[in-house]
Amino acid sequence: MIDINKEIAGLQWDKEPKGLYEPIAYTLSAGGKRLRPQLALIAAEIVMNGGLLNGDALENTLPAALALEVFHNFTLLHDDIMDKAPVRRGRPTVHVQWNDNTAILSGDQMLIEAYKLLSDVPADKLPQVLKWFNEMATGICEGQQYDVDFEHASQVTIEDYMMMIEKKTSLLLAYAMKIGGYIAGGTPAQLEALYQYGLHIGLAFQIQDDILDVYGNPETFGKTIGGDICSNKKTYLLLSAMEHADPESKAELLQWLLVSDRDAEKIAAVTAIYTRLGVRELSESVMEEHTAQALAQLDKLPQNGATERLRVLAEQLVTRKS
Amino acid sequence: MIDINKEIAGLQWDKEPKGLYEPIAYTLSAGGKRLRPQLALIAAEIVMNGGLLNGDALENTLPAALALEVFHNFTLLHDDIMDKAPVRRGRPTVHVQWNDNTAILSGDQMLIEAYKLLSDVPADKLPQVLKWFNEMATGICEGQQYDVDFEHASQVTIEDYMMMIEKKTSLLLAYAMKIGGYIAGGTPAQLEALYQYGLHIGLAFQIQDDILDVYGNPETFGKTIGGDICSNKKTYLLLSAMEHADPESKAELLQWLLVSDRDAEKIAAVTAIYTRLGVRELSESVMEEHTAQALAQLDKLPQNGATERLRVLAEQLVTRKS
Repeated sequence: MIDINKEIAGLQWDKEPKGLYEPIAYTLSAGGKRLRPQLALIAAEIVMNGGLLNGDALENTLPAALALEVFHNFTLLHDDIMDKAPVRRGRPTVHVQWNDNTAILSGDQMLIEAYKLLSDVPADKLPQVLKWFNEMATGICEGQQYDVDFEHASQVTIEDYMMMIEKKTSLLLAYAMKIGGYIAGGTPAQLEALYQYGLHIGLAFQIQDDILDVYGNPETFGKTIGGDICSNKKTYLLLSAMEHADPESKAELLQWLLVSDRDAEKIAAVTAIYTRLGVRELSESVMEEHTAQALAQLDKLPQNGATERLRVLAEQLVTRKS
Repeated sequence: MIDINKEIAGLQWDKEPKGLYEPIAYTLSAGGKRLRPQLALIAAEIVMNGGLLNGDALENTLPAALALEVFHNFTLLHDDIMDKAPVRRGRPTVHVQWNDNTAILSGDQMLIEAYKLLSDVPADKLPQVLKWFNEMATGICEGQQYDVDFEHASQVTIEDYMMMIEKKTSLLLAYAMKIGGYIAGGTPAQLEALYQYGLHIGLAFQIQDDILDVYGNPETFGKTIGGDICSNKKTYLLLSAMEHADPESKAELLQWLLVSDRDAEKIAAVTAIYTRLGVRELSESVMEEHTAQALAQLDKLPQNGATERLRVLAEQLVTRKS
């Protein structure tokens, strides 16, 4: 059994120049769920049918799994500069702890480090893995750009939003599954099922995130409830409300979007509008639909302990509180 | 004959989201010498002995040649943010024309685009090319970090400086030669000669740059003479002067480093110290030595029109005025 945290901790950053490598060590040691490398390894285990057929295949998947985690952390590092985020995983962000220039350059090096890890993918699999990895990375940059664009756009549809979160969040999960399965020798049909599982689980995860921001339990959520409402973030809930509101509710909602000095009152009022319009149930049903679509993919795969872990993961998602 | 400018212009950036791709098109359309892809193609031509033996090899080298140019432009884009540079190739830099966030994200995408181009390297050559490309990219980020560190360091030796410019400037030229030659089927001895040519020509180029900043002809240099002196930049000339100065000259030089409000006077005084210490001749001899070492590599390679172009390039370098 591969311990991802141990593997991440085993990457060597104690080298010169320290100004380049210390922020990378700092970022990667901050923890996180390590979801993406886990998904890549689980996907490999599934197509190996529990690891019984080919012991090397799991080892072979490790460099790509680590590359996905390093890449993910690179995106967080640069996103935090762009968002001027002060804190990440309970610690000052790199651009705060050091400065913007350090965060830019160390982030660049992290992206290169991801490709270095990728270069250890078995040679016969490398051309395809590199192409998929590049598609994934491109989609994520596009998703980040759309996210920025949507902040200032007057017209954003639910369709636009789903396209954006698919790129920004889901693609990395989907490609983690597909790349992991491919290196372990999965068939094209298996790879497609793995990819679709990742895609739908990512969409469900993001919509659940939007729901929890409004309806989460303050004691278990971890973040402040209503943060998205205060910042007028175009979430699945806000866009659904705008799309389904009667003229009066829409006018009321638009008026609250202009308010920026009465947070508690704004959160209560907007939440009331959402509840009245049935936006919570609507969002939950879409989230559950994507979870169901993810679960349906599992039936197309070999049934073993690893497949079962994906089933549990999807079910935990629907009932998670934070 | 491959026309690099045409190939660069042929890359498609007319896609969504425009906020991500327009800055890339803007950066790549600004021209520049296209030196790195030219070197990769010339290296390929040399080992193919004039292109007579294998016509496909030159075509096969093109994706890597373009990847090197896109990578080089990515480094300029991010360096310009870090240096707060307002102008590049006669046009506003991306972070000025758009903003810092756009320059960060579009730069990231350019780095990914370089790897996309690289993924078209013939599959049997890809693992090695990817490893070398990653080594080169890592070296350049390290060089940039050392450059930043040296700005604030009290003790920088000539040895430190040579190490820094080798990473920041020479590696890209050296790996362009080696990668181009490798894809075209060069022998290990040829690849080593190509690599060393690129390395030494890069060092000579950078030292010549430092010399021209002080002793260049204002009418042909293009930039203001003495810019490095005004900003106390630790160039080959300044570091040589510090290393070779008698105590009195050193004290005089150190005093001028503290002056920031009398540019013309400072340039004249520091230049006079350099001239008195023989720093110009010293720098020129080191530059000529590296040029000679580059030229010596050419004797180890097949002699053809492409080899001759490298000879001319090296000789032009020693006598260039801008």
